[in-house]
Formats: sequence, structure tokens, C-alpha cells
Amino acid sequence: MPVSLVILTQPGDARPRRVLTVAAGTSILTAAHDGGVDVTATCGGRGRCTSCRVKFIEGTIPPPTIMDEIQLGDDLVREGYRLSCQCTVTEPITVQVAPPLDEQAFQILGAGPGVGGLGVRIDAGIAKELVKVSLPREEHHQTSDLEQLAAAIGVAPESVGPSVLAGLPQALRDDPAGVTVTTFVSGSGPAGAARTVVAVERGDTTAMKFGLAIDVGTTSVVTTLIELESGEQLASVSSLNPQAVFGGDLMSRIAFAQFNPTNLRKLQTRIVGLLNQHVAEVCRTSGVLPKWIYKAVVVGNTCMHHLLLGIDPSHVGLAPYAPVMRHAAVLPARELPLKIAPEARVCLLPLVAGFVGADAVAVALATRLADSPALRVAVDIGTNGEVLLGSRERLLACSAPAGPALEGAQIRHGMRGAQGAIDKVTIDHDVHIHTIGETPALGICGSGLIDLLAGLLAAGVIDWTGLIQVEARDSLPPALRGRVAMRGEERVFVVLRPGEAGARAEIVLTQDDVRQVQLAKGAIASGIAMLLHVAAVPLERVEELLLAGGFGNYLSILSAIRIGLIPALPVGRVRYVGNAASLGAQLCLLSEAERARADTIASRIEHVSLAAHPDFEQLFVDAMNFPRG
Amino acid sequence: MPVSLVILTQPGDARPRRVLTVAAGTSILTAAHDGGVDVTATCGGRGRCTSCRVKFIEGTIPPPTIMDEIQLGDDLVREGYRLSCQCTVTEPITVQVAPPLDEQAFQILGAGPGVGGLGVRIDAGIAKELVKVSLPREEHHQTSDLEQLAAAIGVAPESVGPSVLAGLPQALRDDPAGVTVTTFVSGSGPAGAARTVVAVERGDTTAMKFGLAIDVGTTSVVTTLIELESGEQLASVSSLNPQAVFGGDLMSRIAFAQFNPTNLRKLQTRIVGLLNQHVAEVCRTSGVLPKWIYKAVVVGNTCMHHLLLGIDPSHVGLAPYAPVMRHAAVLPARELPLKIAPEARVCLLPLVAGFVGADAVAVALATRLADSPALRVAVDIGTNGEVLLGSRERLLACSAPAGPALEGAQIRHGMRGAQGAIDKVTIDHDVHIHTIGETPALGICGSGLIDLLAGLLAAGVIDWTGLIQVEARDSLPPALRGRVAMRGEERVFVVLRPGEAGARAEIVLTQDDVRQVQLAKGAIASGIAMLLHVAAVPLERVEELLLAGGFGNYLSILSAIRIGLIPALPVGRVRYVGNAASLGAQLCLLSEAERARADTIASRIEHVSLAAHPDFEQLFVDAMNFPRG
Repeated sequence: MPVSLVILTQPGDARPRRVLTVAAGTSILTAAHDGGVDVTATCGGRGRCTSCRVKFIEGTIPPPTIMDEIQLGDDLVREGYRLSCQCTVTEPITVQVAPPLDEQAFQILGAGPGVGGLGVRIDAGIAKELVKVSLPREEHHQTSDLEQLAAAIGVAPESVGPSVLAGLPQALRDDPAGVTVTTFVSGSGPAGAARTVVAVERGDTTAMKFGLAIDVGTTSVVTTLIELESGEQLASVSSLNPQAVFGGDLMSRIAFAQFNPTNLRKLQTRIVGLLNQHVAEVCRTSGVLPKWIYKAVVVGNTCMHHLLLGIDPSHVGLAPYAPVMRHAAVLPARELPLKIAPEARVCLLPLVAGFVGADAVAVALATRLADSPALRVAVDIGTNGEVLLGSRERLLACSAPAGPALEGAQIRHGMRGAQGAIDKVTIDHDVHIHTIGETPALGICGSGLIDLLAGLLAAGVIDWTGLIQVEARDSLPPALRGRVAMRGEERVFVVLRPGEAGARAEIVLTQDDVRQVQLAKGAIASGIAMLLHVAAVPLERVEELLLAGGFGNYLSILSAIRIGLIPALPVGRVRYVGNAASLGAQLCLLSEAERARADTIASRIEHVSLAAHPDFEQLFVDAMNFPRG
Repeated sequence: MPVSLVILTQPGDARPRRVLTVAAGTSILTAAHDGGVDVTATCGGRGRCTSCRVKFIEGTIPPPTIMDEIQLGDDLVREGYRLSCQCTVTEPITVQVAPPLDEQAFQILGAGPGVGGLGVRIDAGIAKELVKVSLPREEHHQTSDLEQLAAAIGVAPESVGPSVLAGLPQALRDDPAGVTVTTFVSGSGPAGAARTVVAVERGDTTAMKFGLAIDVGTTSVVTTLIELESGEQLASVSSLNPQAVFGGDLMSRIAFAQFNPTNLRKLQTRIVGLLNQHVAEVCRTSGVLPKWIYKAVVVGNTCMHHLLLGIDPSHVGLAPYAPVMRHAAVLPARELPLKIAPEARVCLLPLVAGFVGADAVAVALATRLADSPALRVAVDIGTNGEVLLGSRERLLACSAPAGPALEGAQIRHGMRGAQGAIDKVTIDHDVHIHTIGETPALGICGSGLIDLLAGLLAAGVIDWTGLIQVEARDSLPPALRGRVAMRGEERVFVVLRPGEAGARAEIVLTQDDVRQVQLAKGAIASGIAMLLHVAAVPLERVEELLLAGGFGNYLSILSAIRIGLIPALPVGRVRYVGNAASLGAQLCLLSEAERARADTIASRIEHVSLAAHPDFEQLFVDAMNFPRG
């Protein structure tokens, strides 16, 4: 699918405006080079420097990647800068090439302090070294393979993971070059902190060092494969959580598991199975071998966390909603089992409360909510979303159980933000849609739903209570009028008729779909209102509202405000930051200092229980309605 | 099967000699009480005191139990004292009741220093306490079940084993009495040493605290269930190692596993499966639940150790016979998996070399070989036996690969020392046998084989080269003459004809059986000779020779000397100490100080490699022949 890419070069260039036609999915850097436009890429396009950065002039600015955050920092990201090597073209855009940088700006991350605004230095805690282990040749020796290895790298034999031992004798004798030993040092501790040996491989494999950032949501699961030295994102895969067949929301899933070890085991097996499919997929895409993955960071809400570990979540679902554990756990991959290096460290970020999980901690970490003197709000939109309100002084969080509607689930023609999903909608005299990949429409995803409802509200197709105006349709423009209908007992709005925009089948929005979105946005809006209420600050004091969630490239701030998903702040003070939970996991994957910081953040977050608050009921009922516009 | 028991009471008793007829398998104490003989049993017959001790006057003195060793000490044990509560009647015996003791002698072990000659204080490292954990009742809490538990017992949340978490919320809420928390503190370290939580159970289960001592031999596997507070042995089970179908000796088993992960896995699965059968059996016998078993100590040779852990033993079988690891490993039971408490600590004793394993360390520990100024030899007879020579000054060890003959394997009518096995043989003008349990003979076990060969040598049925004297049989007494025969190409000695001593089928000793015993005793005798040679000490300097191995109750020292299994020391300087490897495991099970001591012993043992020694070949060939009598 060809897309137009306009590149504005630097002043003084003979051709200041270059119009290219590129295949959707090509990176801006590759497209520029293929089109003969000079864009400096000092690190070779691996996200290790800032030289290829571009500023978005027209078109949707994609959420920043972890490398955008690390290399460019918060300020440049907010101004619309992105690394052209990390950013693919999916729709017509215009970007401005940045002026060339001096040599200084190129810096191998991991070798020194990070250059980015987040101040993150890459240090995943994983080190590989090529070691020649001397083995005794005569029989009176009083040693073992393990002791020789441990002595060569300066650790105690006990610090070598047990599954490393199985293949150790062969590895030590197979390659005259030696063995590559992979170690992990936890946390941001002192240089003398205990090292664990997580792998021993024959020959020199020091160049192969990968990790996984895993975001286990109630509805969606996202796994990202990252090179641990550069931070380069090699592959990412997203799927529906297969536990959903046992219940779409947390409460029904807890009810299924409740006091029933077999069902608990089923839920655990499903999620572990999916993660292993993800491992296989990101490895196939990238050519990385699973045994080269030595670290994984997992975020998720408390229930997802417990189910992944096989812990009975029954009491998470019963007042007072106590989690079974909260601390940051690190376990060997073989214990899940996750099919990467058996002794790879799987790090689960800490939890806060029964309904404020590691995902909330990851969002707080990625948005730097606790670092700024300014009061800011972060909203993570998901089936079990969270709302955070904070500054350097104080950090409050509550759950916002939006349900799966905004992830496209339990919506008649809903779907995830994958190819063919309607992700943008505008309505004037008729409906205009855009699909991901610009392919024929298959369904509608969360950002499309928000746009659609905003448009229908503005056009008067639905009223502030959410009712589709079947009776009053005659006052609508003719094209819209024809789309409003009763189907039996059901009110519907026909978004696409078969054939429209290449749609093979009809795509409709039902009255019930509208109600699902109202529940979702009501949960989030009332969460925001409750935190402001508890903190006793007026909305005006909020300097910035950060909207997070897995919406792909696009979420319209104006539409979100129009439907009342978020309060009516000036649009410049609202920013869509992408999947911040996954970004937080990526930060902890790439930096043990960040992982230690997650612990501090978790202990700082004050949990506000909505259900226990006497004022909540009224807030929620109010928030269910749409703003009267 | 009734057996006669003669009890000599104390001087002044009206009836100084009481003759009882008791069922075989009854404990001496029970038999005495049932027969109206007063024997003091201050602790109630649980092995916790010394008041019920008896001295053996006639009949075979059984090998000491762990409680004999702990309570009575080395000197009394050597003089023929045993605890009557720990000792069952299996053949006609005469015992003398000890004089009553003052109150002082009764001491609950575990509460103070041990009273026994081994100086062992029972402290298995396992503690149980009943804890009431307070759980928050309101929803704004910032805690978790685990944190509340950890705070209640004063440990960090990380020290709670992961599989404890699965059932934690239920356990904490089920019983108003509270939960019983089981912790393990490793080694003999300071009071502040790290505690691991190995189990949390609803209600008060503090009285239930058990452990396993496991001796994994190449041919035989012995599992003993022990109460961890008193040291009482509740059940013991012994089986053939089921790995034997893949090779009877170590080298053939290594060859099977060699560089073949599937075969390695098969060997591991077999032994783990057997251990789990043993667990089920000792639990059924004793009424103990597997989940109440919190510690296990495993000893075995290096190859058995590696196979149990799934470690490739290929290089243990190739010069220079390097073990993969040697250190004392502690792992949770779930990792094998051993079906006891999932987080129970499975402690493997340390190894010394490829062919000197944890069993040798356990023998050195149990025999106190390294504690005495006297130079002593300990011989552990088994398929892969070891010989140790040592004193306070120095400790040498070598392997003695005797093969399975003395465990009754690879012998035509061989069997383990179980009911129906011929365990004693005397030969005068004819053959006289005794069977274990005094039931009809089913086969012949190790001690019976040694007796049989000693008798046949004395009678001239076999000559010093081991040849059965078919050609010269006419010079034998008529009854023996009729038992020497050719069967086709094969020379045999008919031990029992069908019907003799109740035997259902013929039991013979073949020429090849004799050769197998010659190989076995040659390996052991040459091992002893080699250590004396390396240490440059004459046989006369050896003050005591301790014979260990799983021969059940009986091994004739005189027969062992007659066939040259051990050198011709004065019979008073040779002692049969029973299964010392298992005894060592039991010591480490009951005492973390002893387990720490095993580490010291392992590091002190100097390994002597027989195969690498230029003088070994000649020593071995000489040792294969029988002494000329």
C-alpha cells in the first residue's frame, strides 16, 4: 500500500521539499535513503544516536518508542521529534529533517550516561563474557567443571543456575575459543552485588543479548523483543489474552478461578502458552534464538500477575481486595516456564493493591509522574485501567475498570488495533473512515470508536444520554439519516455498508456498543474526578494530562474530550503517550536502575479505593453521560 | 514366625533369666513388656533416652540405628549395647537388661546438647510455629497477605518459597487458630542466618515435622523417614535402583546416558519416580502426610548424584573423570520433583571426585574417621564402594568398584537382603543356612554369599583361584560331594535342593557367581592395599577397620576375612557398622551442624585415583585370588 512521505530538508538545500511515495511500513530513514534524501544516521539506524531525528509537521505523530524517549528526551518528544530510524510510515506525513549534529552527540548507550531527557543509561544487568576455562588433565585433581568455571569468572559455584549445569561439561570442551558466560546483577546495587550465572554457551556468542518487555493486560497482551546493548526494538507482537474465554473482565475471571485449583491452572497455562507463542513469533521475525533471551520484564494488573504465577486470586476479588504478594519478584524462566534461556531472569514489577498493579507502577515510571513539581494526571486506558495523579510531593492512584470496549472487545464489530481496523472517523454530512494499513475495513478499534462517538454526538445522531436518535433521524443530513435504523428491537448506526470503503460486510455500531463505551469512559472519568476530589485540587491545577493505552499510532485528544473520556482541559495540556505500561516495562528491561526506581515508586503510590468511597456512586453515574457539548 | 528371646534381668531379680517366645519383627522392648519383664522406658520407647538399653549376650548384634549412635555413643555401641525400643527380634537372641538410670539421663533431644557419644544435638534446621496473622479489614490498606505473614514471623517477603504463595490466602483465612509456618535455617551459622519459609499450613500442625534420609546407590536405594524432633525412625524402604535396566554398573549407565539427552532424562525420571514411590510407601506405613516432610538429605556416588539432578555424567566416565559440580547443593523439592512439601529443602551432600561421592563423605562423617588420633579404615561395600583411610591428621579415599555381586545382583540366585534371603551359611559335613525372617529360602544375599564362599574355601570345595573342584570332588565329605556338579559346560555348587529348608526351587552357586564375588572382593581389597601403600603405613598400624554396607542385620567378619574381602586383622579390630552412608545422611538430616561438618570433611578428603597409579594393576590381580587359608 503506497503512502506519500514529504521530507523538508535543511535551509540551503537545493530541493527543500522532497515528495516520496513509499510502501506503508517502511521506516522514514530507509524511505529517505531509498529516495536519495540525505539523513544522517551516525549509528547506522539502530536507535543509538539522535542524528536521524525528524520533526513531524503534518500527519499523526506516532507515540514515542523507548529509544525516542531515551535518546531525545521528554521535551523533544513533546515537540514532535522522533528518530526516523524507529518510526514507520503508515499514512501521509510531512517531516522536517534536523540539522546535522556534531560528533559529540553520538554515544554508545551502555558505555556512559544516557543522553536522553529521561536520563536513562542502558544497563540491563546482563553481561556476557568470553572465558577460557582451564580443565585439569590428570586424575588426581580435586575440582569440578563448575568450580573451574566459577573461579574463571569470580563467582561462587552456588550462583550458577541449576539448569546451566546439564550442558556444562560439553560446552566447556567443545570449542577451543572458550565459552560465553552470561551473568545477571540485580538492581542498582554496588559493584560487588551478587552475580548470577544465567547461561553458559560454547564459543563466542557475546554479541547476542536480548530481552523481552511483556505487558499482560486483561484483554490484550503485548510482547516486545529488544536488543539489550542498544535498546533497539526488533519485534513486537500483540494478541488477545486467551484467558478471555473464561471471562472478559477480571471479576468473571476471578470467579472462574475461585477456590478451584484446576481452573486456576487452566488460566495460568493459557497465559504462559500465549507468552511462549509470542516468544516463538518475535524470534522468528527477528532471527533471534530464544536461548539468547536472558531477561524479561513483566507488567500487568494484580490479577494478571497472580494468575501468571499460579497464585489464587480469589481474595483479590473479595473486599478488602487484598493482593497475595506485592514485592518485585525475580524468578528463573524455567519456573513459569517461559521458553527462553532456562535461567533467564523474569522480573515482575511490584504491585500496589488489589486493583492497582504493576502496570500502574510502569505508567508512573514511564511518564515520570513523580519527578516533576507540576501536578499531572496519567490515565492508562485498558479493561482494567488506572488513573494516577501526582507530582514530586504526592502520588495517588485508583483503578478505572473500563471494561474491554476500548480495546475493541464486547463491541459488535469491534477489533484490536490491527490491520483493517477503523482507527479514525470523521463525520460531517456523512461518515469518513481511515483504516490501519489503509486496507479494507474489517472492524473498528478503540480510537475509531472514540472518534465515531464524538462525531455522532456532534452531529446529533446520539444525545447526551447515549441514545441513538432513531425517532428524530429526520432532522439529520440525508446520508446520516439513512444510517440510523432499528434492527428488530435494536437501535443501530451503520458505519459502513458492504462495499463502502472496501468493506466486505456491514459494520454497525449498536445501542449496546454505545452503552459499553459509556461504561468505559464513565469509569475513567469518575476515577479522574475522584482523585482530584481526594487530593482536593481543582482540575485547573492539573498542568498536563497524559493519556496512555495500546491504541497503536493514533488517539484523537479532541474526540476523547468530546465524549468525556477525559475532562475538558485545553487540548495543548493533553498528550497521548502510547502504551506507557509497556514503555515502563521496556525501561526496566534496559535499566536495572529504572527497575529499582519502580520499587520506590510502588512504595510511594497511595491507593484510593473507589468502591469504598461514599461519594463515588454519584460521581460514576454523572460520568456515564456524555458532555452536553 | 515365633523366635526365642532370652532376657537376663538385673542381679537380685527373683527370676534372673526369662525365656520368651515372640513374633519375629517385634521390638525387644515390646516383647519384654508383653512378657511381663520390667524394662524402663522413660521416653515411652521413642528412642529419646537411654533407659531401655540392653546388651547383646548371644546372637547377632544388629548394626546400630541412628538413635543408638546418638543416644548410646560409639563406645557403648561397640560393646554391644542397643536401645531395645529401636531393635527388633529376628532370630534367637539373649540380651541383658541394663541397670536403671537416674532421672538425669532422660533428656529431650533438640532441647539441649545431645547425650550420645557422637555429641550430636538434634537440630534439623526446620522450625514450625503457630502464627496469627492480622489481615486488614478496610480497603485503603497498602499491604498484602505475604507482607503480613512475613512481618508476623520476622522475615523478608522474598524468603517465602513461591509455591507457598498459591494457597496462602486460603490458609490465612481458614482457621481462627492461625497458620503453622515452617522455616528452614541452613547450616550451623549464626542466629541471624537467613530463614526460608518452606510451608504455611492452616491451623496448628506444629507437632508434624518429618524428614527423609535417602541413599541412592548404583544397585540399591534406601529411603528412611525420620521424625525431626526426636530422631525416631518411622519407616524405611529399600529397593533395587530401577536405572539398572539401562546398565548394572556405572560405566554402562554412563555409556547409556552419554551425549544423549533423552537417555539422560530417562535415567533421571527412573530414579525420581522410585524416590516418589518410596515417599508414598514410608508415608503409608507411618501415617505421615507427604506435605509434612520438609527436609531430605541425599547421598550417593557422583554419577547417581548427577543423574538425579539431570546433569550429563559423560565426562565422569572419561579420563580424567571430572565431576560437573561438587558443592553441597540445596534445592526445593518441587525442582526434582520430589512429592513432599513443594518447598521442602532437598540437601545433597558434597562430592569429592568423579568416583568418590557424597556416600564416601557420609561414611567418613558417620564413622568419625577424621576425629580420632587412631588410624582407621572404613570400607563401604557396594556396587561402587569406597575405601577410606584416615585419622585426625589425614584422610584418603579411593573408589572400590566392586560391582553388584555383594548386593545380590548379577548372581544366578542372588537377591537383596529381604525376607527369604539366605543371610548366613555354615558348612561342616553339609550346608546349613539361615534366612531373613526365617521363612523358606528364595535366594542368597551378600552376607550369605560371603559366608558360603568362606565355608566352601574351608571345606576345599573351591580352591584359592576360585575354581569349583568338580574333578576332585571325591575327596569331599559325601553330602558336599553330591552338591558339586557340572551342568553342561558350567561348574555349580548346589546350595539347596528343592524341598531343603523349605526351598521351592533349587538354589545354586555357579562358577561365574564365584568370579563375580572375586571381582568384588578384589576391588575392595586392592583399594585398601592401595591406600595403605600411598599413605606408606603397614597394615598393623590400622587400629580399626569399619565395614559398612547395606547387609541388613548381619555380616560375618570372620567370613569376610576368610575370603580376603578385608585383610587379616585381629577380629576384634574389625567392626560391621551397617549402612554408614545412610547413617551419615540421617545425621545430616537431624543436625545442620553435621551437614556443615560434611562440607569440611569433603574438602579434607584426598582422592587417590587407582587407575592412574602404576602399581594398581598388580595389586588388583593379586587381590582377585582367595587367601590360601
